[in-house]
Amino acid sequence: MEPGTARIAVDLLGGDHAPAVVVDGALRACQADPSLHLLLVGPLEVAGKILAALDPADRARVNTRVVTGKDEPGGRSHDPGTVQAAVLAVVEGHADALVSAGSTGATVRAAALGFGRWPGIRRPALAAVLPTAAGRLVLLDVGASVDPGPSTLIGHTLLGAAYAAAVHTLDAPRVGLLSIGTEPGKGDRVRRAAAPLLAGLQLPADAHYIGLVEGHDVVLGEQADVVVTDGFSGNVLLKGLEAAYGLAGGRLPIDAPPRAAALLGVAGTVVVCHGAATAGDLASGIALAAHLHRRAAVAVSAGLISLGRTTDSGISDHEVSHE
Amino acid sequence: MEPGTARIAVDLLGGDHAPAVVVDGALRACQADPSLHLLLVGPLEVAGKILAALDPADRARVNTRVVTGKDEPGGRSHDPGTVQAAVLAVVEGHADALVSAGSTGATVRAAALGFGRWPGIRRPALAAVLPTAAGRLVLLDVGASVDPGPSTLIGHTLLGAAYAAAVHTLDAPRVGLLSIGTEPGKGDRVRRAAAPLLAGLQLPADAHYIGLVEGHDVVLGEQADVVVTDGFSGNVLLKGLEAAYGLAGGRLPIDAPPRAAALLGVAGTVVVCHGAATAGDLASGIALAAHLHRRAAVAVSAGLISLGRTTDSGISDHEVSHE
Repeated sequence: MEPGTARIAVDLLGGDHAPAVVVDGALRACQADPSLHLLLVGPLEVAGKILAALDPADRARVNTRVVTGKDEPGGRSHDPGTVQAAVLAVVEGHADALVSAGSTGATVRAAALGFGRWPGIRRPALAAVLPTAAGRLVLLDVGASVDPGPSTLIGHTLLGAAYAAAVHTLDAPRVGLLSIGTEPGKGDRVRRAAAPLLAGLQLPADAHYIGLVEGHDVVLGEQADVVVTDGFSGNVLLKGLEAAYGLAGGRLPIDAPPRAAALLGVAGTVVVCHGAATAGDLASGIALAAHLHRRAAVAVSAGLISLGRTTDSGISDHEVSHE
Repeated sequence: MEPGTARIAVDLLGGDHAPAVVVDGALRACQADPSLHLLLVGPLEVAGKILAALDPADRARVNTRVVTGKDEPGGRSHDPGTVQAAVLAVVEGHADALVSAGSTGATVRAAALGFGRWPGIRRPALAAVLPTAAGRLVLLDVGASVDPGPSTLIGHTLLGAAYAAAVHTLDAPRVGLLSIGTEPGKGDRVRRAAAPLLAGLQLPADAHYIGLVEGHDVVLGEQADVVVTDGFSGNVLLKGLEAAYGLAGGRLPIDAPPRAAALLGVAGTVVVCHGAATAGDLASGIALAAHLHRRAAVAVSAGLISLGRTTDSGISDHEVSHE
């Protein structure tokens, strides 16, 4: 394998518009990045369409793992078994990372089961990177954790801080907790319980907790580099912003957020695309997975958290008592 | 009093930038609407600034209720007592409606206490009206209820449906429950508990529950006329969208949402402005309060709900068992 090579397993049956958009997305990604290798996971006839459309010279970069869907393809609620097969391919060393636009819940479960979790992290989180007027911002969670307790928000804080340091190479990232006001005590029960714990927490990579932030801070990016929230409000906000940026049709001074999120907290590189992902979204997701693999994002992030944890005081207590 | 006259009590000390922006906002509102009368509630010297800046012919439309702030003006966390005095002025018949940019919690409490609630509604909700590509959309709650139970979301559904019918004169408004996927069962605990109850609920004004909607539906407006959510996610989404529309600077095909929300569920007309409201936001809030009064929005909405309730089956049971 040449240096810089990234071997990405692609779930051919994941997503509302699979397999058509996955086929197109995989082709685009392959053509855009000559060091990209794909492992197509799904029915032979779908993989065949991609191979047939590729330049013969590029076909050597594409392998197939045949999985006949257990169910009809395309639905987010269906579980065609392709995402488990993609996880297995990474575990077995046949791919470096995986991408799926299938059910978020199914992907998170398969990844947590197949890869295991990072030391000290109980709940994985989906992290979206949003372009802002002031630079990139990591928003997490955007859909993996609903009804989190304070300890899950603390876990998200560690994950987001480590990701910003490892992938965005930010020194001392600023981490905010999303709420509905910035004065201490603002927010719902879980925010009010988590905020004082976060204030006392030692974060990886010299990150620091800056307190409560609001919805507009996620857009403007002036206050925080990482914004932590539950998967419900994070998902609602992300989808709302995507639609607003979509309406703007490129007339905004910032780019639209990519419709692909990195799964943090599992010991493997996983990118989850929007269920309604387009071919362009899939290609972005595959490129993100390759980027994360090349940066060794999982190993570096998990390492930063383990390093920080040696001087950490008392998060385990909170995890037991508050969840 | 001439027909069309609206007498609006304005909290001079509410908001992060009070009293300066309130003074400017009141002046703008007064100049824009010749049938508007203002009752300025706050310190004499602040009211004096407004009177001094007005054309002498307009001064007859402005009265003052002197309240010396209990505290320093300006902070959202402070409670200068002006909002209670404004509620009292409406209760006593000296004004038709009130506007405050002060603490949302303090305004909701003062209004619920002073006016009482609509029959059958336990928790008031703040409703924001968002312009969408497909028309106006009512989003509620945007900050009055955090940690709601299923019965509070049911109450919001009744309030939103009645408001859309009464104020937007919509026949059979379509009401959606905000979630993170549209398939039945998607969402967190409270959404999963509320959705089946909503499906069986008889709504006022021939409104119908269309099921789960997502963040982008609030922007696009194609699926629903009313979107119901908890005050945390609603506030986060609204503030995020406001900032995105602000970045677009008028380059979007739709207007920015007004930074003023109607308080529904209390037996008086109340408009709450953003704590960081500008003079323009305050003027919009005053205009919204006048509009709601002229439409008799509170009486009509509450009446629609009472009417619907005579054939309603079982909401009280859910309120007792789920909250």
